[in-house]
Amino acid sequence: MNYRIISKVLGRVMAVLAALMIPPIIAALYYGEEIYYFVATMAISGALAVLLSLPRLKYRDFYAREGFVSVALSWLLISMVGALPFVIAGEIPSYIDAFFEIVSGFTTTGATILTDIEAVSKGLLLWRSLSHWIGGMGVLVFIMAVVPLSEERSMHIMRAEVPGPVVGKLVPRIRLSSAITYLMYIALTVILIILLCAGGMPFFDSLNHAMATAGTGGFSVKQLSIGYYDSVYIDVVTSIFMLLFGVNFSIYFLLLMKKFRAALLDSEFLGYFGIALGVSVLIALDIIDEYGGFWNAFRYSLFQVSSLMTTTGFATADFTLWPAFSKSLLIIVMLIGASAGSTGGGLKVSRVIIFFKTASQEIGKMLNPRRTASVRVNGRALATTTIRNTLVFISLYFLITLVLVVLVSLDGYDFETTFASVVSCMSNVGPGLGPAGPMGSFDIFSDLSKVLLSFGMLIGRLEIFPILILFSPATWRKR
Amino acid sequence: MNYRIISKVLGRVMAVLAALMIPPIIAALYYGEEIYYFVATMAISGALAVLLSLPRLKYRDFYAREGFVSVALSWLLISMVGALPFVIAGEIPSYIDAFFEIVSGFTTTGATILTDIEAVSKGLLLWRSLSHWIGGMGVLVFIMAVVPLSEERSMHIMRAEVPGPVVGKLVPRIRLSSAITYLMYIALTVILIILLCAGGMPFFDSLNHAMATAGTGGFSVKQLSIGYYDSVYIDVVTSIFMLLFGVNFSIYFLLLMKKFRAALLDSEFLGYFGIALGVSVLIALDIIDEYGGFWNAFRYSLFQVSSLMTTTGFATADFTLWPAFSKSLLIIVMLIGASAGSTGGGLKVSRVIIFFKTASQEIGKMLNPRRTASVRVNGRALATTTIRNTLVFISLYFLITLVLVVLVSLDGYDFETTFASVVSCMSNVGPGLGPAGPMGSFDIFSDLSKVLLSFGMLIGRLEIFPILILFSPATWRKR
Repeated sequence: MNYRIISKVLGRVMAVLAALMIPPIIAALYYGEEIYYFVATMAISGALAVLLSLPRLKYRDFYAREGFVSVALSWLLISMVGALPFVIAGEIPSYIDAFFEIVSGFTTTGATILTDIEAVSKGLLLWRSLSHWIGGMGVLVFIMAVVPLSEERSMHIMRAEVPGPVVGKLVPRIRLSSAITYLMYIALTVILIILLCAGGMPFFDSLNHAMATAGTGGFSVKQLSIGYYDSVYIDVVTSIFMLLFGVNFSIYFLLLMKKFRAALLDSEFLGYFGIALGVSVLIALDIIDEYGGFWNAFRYSLFQVSSLMTTTGFATADFTLWPAFSKSLLIIVMLIGASAGSTGGGLKVSRVIIFFKTASQEIGKMLNPRRTASVRVNGRALATTTIRNTLVFISLYFLITLVLVVLVSLDGYDFETTFASVVSCMSNVGPGLGPAGPMGSFDIFSDLSKVLLSFGMLIGRLEIFPILILFSPATWRKR
Repeated sequence: MNYRIISKVLGRVMAVLAALMIPPIIAALYYGEEIYYFVATMAISGALAVLLSLPRLKYRDFYAREGFVSVALSWLLISMVGALPFVIAGEIPSYIDAFFEIVSGFTTTGATILTDIEAVSKGLLLWRSLSHWIGGMGVLVFIMAVVPLSEERSMHIMRAEVPGPVVGKLVPRIRLSSAITYLMYIALTVILIILLCAGGMPFFDSLNHAMATAGTGGFSVKQLSIGYYDSVYIDVVTSIFMLLFGVNFSIYFLLLMKKFRAALLDSEFLGYFGIALGVSVLIALDIIDEYGGFWNAFRYSLFQVSSLMTTTGFATADFTLWPAFSKSLLIIVMLIGASAGSTGGGLKVSRVIIFFKTASQEIGKMLNPRRTASVRVNGRALATTTIRNTLVFISLYFLITLVLVVLVSLDGYDFETTFASVVSCMSNVGPGLGPAGPMGSFDIFSDLSKVLLSFGMLIGRLEIFPILILFSPATWRKR
């Protein structure tokens, strides 16, 4: 293991964290709030940046191992230090609570331990939203977009940080890829801010909700989430943009390149919108009586399905009160999640597609053992290693979910609450069901559960392997 | 598809079903009950046996396709006709209820829709227990043990009906294998009957409970299940025998051959007992306060873990009232299930082991992509097809469970009840949680849910693929 190069990467992460304190400081100054907690955090992360950059590189080797460990440690460290403003300000006195809150921010989960969001100072609200926006694209991808890294090093980091079964590069050079992706990300965010302001949402709220939507995070500046504004226009705009941020960004690149056919006939793109619409209709039919008519029910079901499938987690209704069938469907879309290469979480639609194609191949093979056929997605045959990795990923996902359910159930909440909260954290959604539902808070859980759920969020966001590799003895063995 | 040979197989199954009416008739005569419903069922299955055997074979081709379809149809048909005694007797007036009950019997699930078991006539109680005993080893394996089939045909049937990731033959000839297995099965059952009688359980109860234990079924002749006898001796004997019937029968063959090392160091054997004991201790510690002291708590936790992990489903306590942590652990052991090649259900310990080894290999491969290492179980490298099949199986298992949860949740019961009932049926355990728990009944569900859960039981018992293959269009396409 090349410890020195990992130290350098972590140093850069701390430098970026120091810089990230600037927007909240501006907001705090504008609203006449204290800024010492941001300045203190800036000083601490600046000092860490210097310390971590001190060791001189002996050699420049940077392999898969270093890539996974750098990513896992970067996310842990940025969360551990990023939690400090809440604690120093005293607005979240418990460090574990603050750690949960900021992990929830960076992993774009949006689960909160706060019980009175309107009471939180503006600077800290912006810091929460900003963590969504940075975490959505990836902490290290953000760094790669601004600071050059070698191609090989970047590839190992991309593989560990960008969600999805295969890492696609938009253009042959990685740094250019991440810069293009970031430009599209910024453009979509700015458009959303303008559209929300146009709908009568105050600028500060629009900025925060746009960042939370872009990262498919879900932190709101209102206790009632988007439901606070009670506006059809805002509901529809937010629904559409949540769905847009759950699309693989390479689809937008294809559209920009005018490759419309390839973009619109992409199987993940079709599957993603197909599931979202199908499930929205089913739920609308299930809740039609409570909402007086199909179209009003559809307004709420589409919003909620978009929100939970893209793993954003905004709410316009307290879906904890919906019928059991609707709630079960919501848990399923939480598990499926958004597209690979988007800012959303969950298993990812492409993995679900690969899984279904593999299962149907497997049945064909059982009927006719001598048959050798490949699993094809978008006309191309998948590598057997991709298939195997996808299957292991899905099984591990369910397994880790079950283990977390067992451990969190030590808190003694009912099964629905425990199960939905764990799935929500693993898939980076945010709200669960029951007392941890959209109108509730994760404050109800014990410290142990909060730490476990924080790890669940990191495991979900980094797609399992970086965190497992970090804790695997094989990683640390000398070669 | 060779329809005629499948018809012949189904004809034999009906002939066996007619013969299976004899033991319940004897019991009914002994207890002075009516026998017309058994005689009528015997006549119907006899007539079907003759009709289905009429078509003359044009050719003897019997491939994997015919094997899977024969097994799936045999189980469906024997359940459809085997449900008749309950309906004709009028003791279960609804045909869907009776179908659920006998599917639960043959699949050795043990979930019941009855609400007053002591009121059922003795003949029908024996028929329920007998269905467990036959279903445990397999309907067609039973036929193969008595009526000779060609080697190739037997292999295809074994592959479809015997649980586990790989089919092991005890001796090179299949018919001998299934005869040896059946002899061991009979011997263990007889020993259990004697031991239960020795503990003061009446002969009729001992016979029924022994058959239900052997098949890891779980139907009891008492509303309170084994808890009715409130005897430490009976609890311990039943715990031990449930665990014994959850062991791969080839282990007993190895022991008979005096290959002690190979038998006792088998990784599934060790994993199976390791999990059972470990989880029993954890639960005992969780319920220690309710049961006054570790050893009394351990008596109940060991019984319940043995019962649910082997997927038998007997109860000595209403574990629905246990703390959330214990209930979550019980759901996990239900999912893991017993050993391959036993009468138990669930994922099977060997699949869980293969999965863990594959996942750890996968992590090794991500750290070092050029590495080529195989997954080894018991010192032998597994075929990549076995690994792939195992991973697809585990993912499909979770997927089907989730789909069933969504559909059954239409009945509107709370998530814990719905989830535990589906897992219980899929893993062929029996009792769920809540109102469908050990002291409750599956009577609470709608007809649609009962049909869905019946298919869940068949899917679980036949390990997914035969049922999927039966309903797959590819199966019925001309080659």
